[in-house]
Amino acid sequence: MIILGIDPGTQNLGFGVIEKNQHRVIFRDGGVIKFHNRDLQDNIKNFSSQLKQIIYDNRFDEVAMETLFFAYNPKSILKLAQFRGAILYFLLNQFANIGEYSPLEVKQSLTGNGKASKEQVNFMVKRVLNISSEIKPLDVSDALAVAITHSQRLKDRY
Amino acid sequence: MIILGIDPGTQNLGFGVIEKNQHRVIFRDGGVIKFHNRDLQDNIKNFSSQLKQIIYDNRFDEVAMETLFFAYNPKSILKLAQFRGAILYFLLNQFANIGEYSPLEVKQSLTGNGKASKEQVNFMVKRVLNISSEIKPLDVSDALAVAITHSQRLKDRY
Repeated sequence: MIILGIDPGTQNLGFGVIEKNQHRVIFRDGGVIKFHNRDLQDNIKNFSSQLKQIIYDNRFDEVAMETLFFAYNPKSILKLAQFRGAILYFLLNQFANIGEYSPLEVKQSLTGNGKASKEQVNFMVKRVLNISSEIKPLDVSDALAVAITHSQRLKDRY
Repeated sequence: MIILGIDPGTQNLGFGVIEKNQHRVIFRDGGVIKFHNRDLQDNIKNFSSQLKQIIYDNRFDEVAMETLFFAYNPKSILKLAQFRGAILYFLLNQFANIGEYSPLEVKQSLTGNGKASKEQVNFMVKRVLNISSEIKPLDVSDALAVAITHSQRLKDRY
């Protein structure tokens, strides 16, 4: 089963792809879609062609995206939330189900601590996926962490 | 020129359609798309079929939507902003340009006072469109007000 995890951001949209077999989870791909433009309309128009390409290049069985939490300045969060809504709309046209997990749930599921740092999450992502090289930037490891969280919930479900 | 105005809401999405001729602005249509379900994914999936129908039933030359302001509780604004982002994505796939106006700009343009009440806006919408009957709910008059604001900006532009 191939799972796409997304960490939505208006400057860096992190994505991570994992493969889940019966007993293990394998790293497949990961990266960042960068937005140099700050215009929301432009970003909403442009993310989809890049995300479409990633979706066409792989065959995802499942997709999961991190939810937002309220720790930004008002203007950033309004922009980010609208951007995330556009991504959600796009994904809902491609997939029957979208897993959504809060940062707390992702941290809890990876490290056992809902307040873990991004570095701790990164450490555990590398351990779970058995990767010795660095995963950078942290948006990628966050996206992989969302995919891993989703793979664990699926295990609970089936 | 036919203009669609949208007042985005997660419970009531107001829309208003006006026709702008050389010297006057005429009321064409207005209404509310209601969402009884509170689930964001469901609402994002469902708004588009209803909005599509409205877009197919008319031939809009221009579309304009009110922007968000930061006066809700954190959870509502996150949901509303994501919903608005999904609408924006949908509209950007249908129209080359989307007019976006803040509530302050809309109030200013209709009443000359950026802090006018919704009732004052409603009063001026009826006056501009020469409507004697009531426009209810206020989401409809808000949507018409956005369309009127856009029609005035277009006049400035051309």
